[in-house]
Amino acid sequence: MEIHTDANKIIAGALAACRPDAAVRKALEDRDFSGGRVVMTAIGKAAWEMAAAAASILGERLERGLVITKYGHSRGEIPRCTVRECGHPTPDAASFAAGEEAIALASDLAVGDHMIFLVSGGGSALFEFPIIPPEELLSVTRQLLACGADIVEINTIRKRLSAVKGGRFAQLCAPAEVFSVVLSDIIGDPLDMIASGPACPDPATCAMAMEIAEKYHLTLSAAAREALERETPKSLDNTETRVTGSVRELCAAAGRVCTSLGYRTIFLTDQLCCEAKEAGSFLASIARTHQGTNQSLAFIAGGETVVHLTGTGRGGRNQELALSAAAGLRGTQDTLLLSLGSDGTDGPTDAAGGIVDGDTAGKLEKKGISIYRTLQQNDAYPALAAVDGLIMTGPTGTNVNDVAVLLIRRSL
Amino acid sequence: MEIHTDANKIIAGALAACRPDAAVRKALEDRDFSGGRVVMTAIGKAAWEMAAAAASILGERLERGLVITKYGHSRGEIPRCTVRECGHPTPDAASFAAGEEAIALASDLAVGDHMIFLVSGGGSALFEFPIIPPEELLSVTRQLLACGADIVEINTIRKRLSAVKGGRFAQLCAPAEVFSVVLSDIIGDPLDMIASGPACPDPATCAMAMEIAEKYHLTLSAAAREALERETPKSLDNTETRVTGSVRELCAAAGRVCTSLGYRTIFLTDQLCCEAKEAGSFLASIARTHQGTNQSLAFIAGGETVVHLTGTGRGGRNQELALSAAAGLRGTQDTLLLSLGSDGTDGPTDAAGGIVDGDTAGKLEKKGISIYRTLQQNDAYPALAAVDGLIMTGPTGTNVNDVAVLLIRRSL
Repeated sequence: MEIHTDANKIIAGALAACRPDAAVRKALEDRDFSGGRVVMTAIGKAAWEMAAAAASILGERLERGLVITKYGHSRGEIPRCTVRECGHPTPDAASFAAGEEAIALASDLAVGDHMIFLVSGGGSALFEFPIIPPEELLSVTRQLLACGADIVEINTIRKRLSAVKGGRFAQLCAPAEVFSVVLSDIIGDPLDMIASGPACPDPATCAMAMEIAEKYHLTLSAAAREALERETPKSLDNTETRVTGSVRELCAAAGRVCTSLGYRTIFLTDQLCCEAKEAGSFLASIARTHQGTNQSLAFIAGGETVVHLTGTGRGGRNQELALSAAAGLRGTQDTLLLSLGSDGTDGPTDAAGGIVDGDTAGKLEKKGISIYRTLQQNDAYPALAAVDGLIMTGPTGTNVNDVAVLLIRRSL
Repeated sequence: MEIHTDANKIIAGALAACRPDAAVRKALEDRDFSGGRVVMTAIGKAAWEMAAAAASILGERLERGLVITKYGHSRGEIPRCTVRECGHPTPDAASFAAGEEAIALASDLAVGDHMIFLVSGGGSALFEFPIIPPEELLSVTRQLLACGADIVEINTIRKRLSAVKGGRFAQLCAPAEVFSVVLSDIIGDPLDMIASGPACPDPATCAMAMEIAEKYHLTLSAAAREALERETPKSLDNTETRVTGSVRELCAAAGRVCTSLGYRTIFLTDQLCCEAKEAGSFLASIARTHQGTNQSLAFIAGGETVVHLTGTGRGGRNQELALSAAAGLRGTQDTLLLSLGSDGTDGPTDAAGGIVDGDTAGKLEKKGISIYRTLQQNDAYPALAAVDGLIMTGPTGTNVNDVAVLLIRRSL
């Protein structure tokens, strides 16, 4: 069906625009790193792809690079670079060794030198060098998680226990200039949160850190207590940051393809954060109202929905959104909904997301699959697999969250 | 603030367009009931308002009318009409007596006569005359509810146990013509469901009814079993239906006011059916993305959201939607969200809904009210009351479900 051809073009176009190499190319092209030495540190799950692109653009200008990514995420050698693979989501000895190398690289810079700092999701765990013993860092983190501290509170504490987080990496690079290129995996691009902001001033203060320690009765060594009292940078005058890939660009790219295919594109949001299956229901209700339109419509909603687990099945938030929408789309004509995770791995599955239309619910019923029960069991993957409803892209090397696209074609 | 003035105009305009008298006027004006006698039956919670409007339009052409509504819903005498008040949501002896009167009125008609049949929400309980003893009707209904039968299954059975539901009232009126005017309280206006479709062919068959009886092992008397085997009308050639008030018109009216106030109006849906608080979160994420727009925007989403109770507080689905949106709108500029139940009584409260803006969450926090906990307790009413966030209209006499309007004003 033509609408499925359109969907495939939208998926390809959206992913292409957010590929790490394209993002780095856009940020570095026409940029002149004149003067001193040029070195590079790349961190996160997309570090290899970003570094490879940067190395090819910079050529001989790059003196040395350090690439810190997750186990299995290196795709080979990069000229003038050292590639280190480490633990994720929990830092390990390899992480700390790599962190120490980065500190050495940063500390060696002089006036007029340039540190190109490439940041992607996962950087918080992958890029670390604690200023207290690693076992105590682990214990503090466990205490914070156990007492229900929120992510802002956890980060406020952890930045102070780290030699590189909370702006300290940029501080180490001084007097050199830091040019930071960020592939954002957090809605709204809060720079101090992405990878715990190694090159971003820390908005939290020592007083706030101590308050959190008291609030949750944290057990802390003298060294840790002292670390909490050491202030993080509140401003950084040697740092420039470019957010080059984000869910906003993922949505914009999807929208551009829709428009080029003749759809009137309505950009709803790039900050979706509600329950995945409810978002699917909401989008399907838009489809039911507008089906039979005399103008083809595309509604775009990006962000990061959530799934509250009630079962033990296989799936991911994009698959749940799509499967839930299938119930609402049932019987509609010329409609389609796709929900796509930009990293190509939605939840712990090998699918990038789900794609459904007005016939999907009927096909599921014929196979004896109840959408309601499947969602209760968080088991969207096999259900969608049974009706050709999975989007399979393979891992994309990028992670800028998700985009859902609802297509409603003009009835002829 | 100007945005709140806009909101008040939108609320007033939306409600005015769906008043039962306006709806009836629109359906009957320019309509000529030539020929024989003109009689009228009005059923449902808005029956009095609809009948009063019809009586004033028809004047002397109306020979006789029967108005069947809920206790406390009559507002006095209507020329040439008998007004009966009965039990709701459970039919009582008064219901059955009124049903019998309607049957007598219908059965007395001849070729060329006209039955004007005015239908509003609540009609399913209010308009009934069972063909089995009332106690058995009650027992069957209880059995169906207890075993988890869905509303379609329940209706399939109940239509067959009734002398007036499932198209049978229109059948009784034959050979007279029935002109049915429907104020729809069900999303998508399924005519066979609204008031159980007294003037609408029944899509379900005897075979389906028997299957349901077997599936749930219903205990049935011989009379009830015989009733299930009596077919309902599958077509009605003496009936014309006009859906005159519906959530679609409520949304359209809200949209017209938005447009007249200078907003670019984006009509999302009139078939919303997801969890109320998740819809609020979805709409707030639209606001966060579009705040600071250079063109004022209004997003309209109508329908009937649901609330899954997790607490024992006071509130309603519109209040929950608005309160949840307040969390997402926190800190935004020039945004407002209102969610309005057209009947003026959202849930079991005296508020019509909720209205929030970028400051609401902060005001709640200052009063020590947690939005998250309040929603867990389904206690939106006192929370919104504390921050001037309730919409108070009084009962409106209409019920065409809800509309939520998100306003985002151009930043100056």
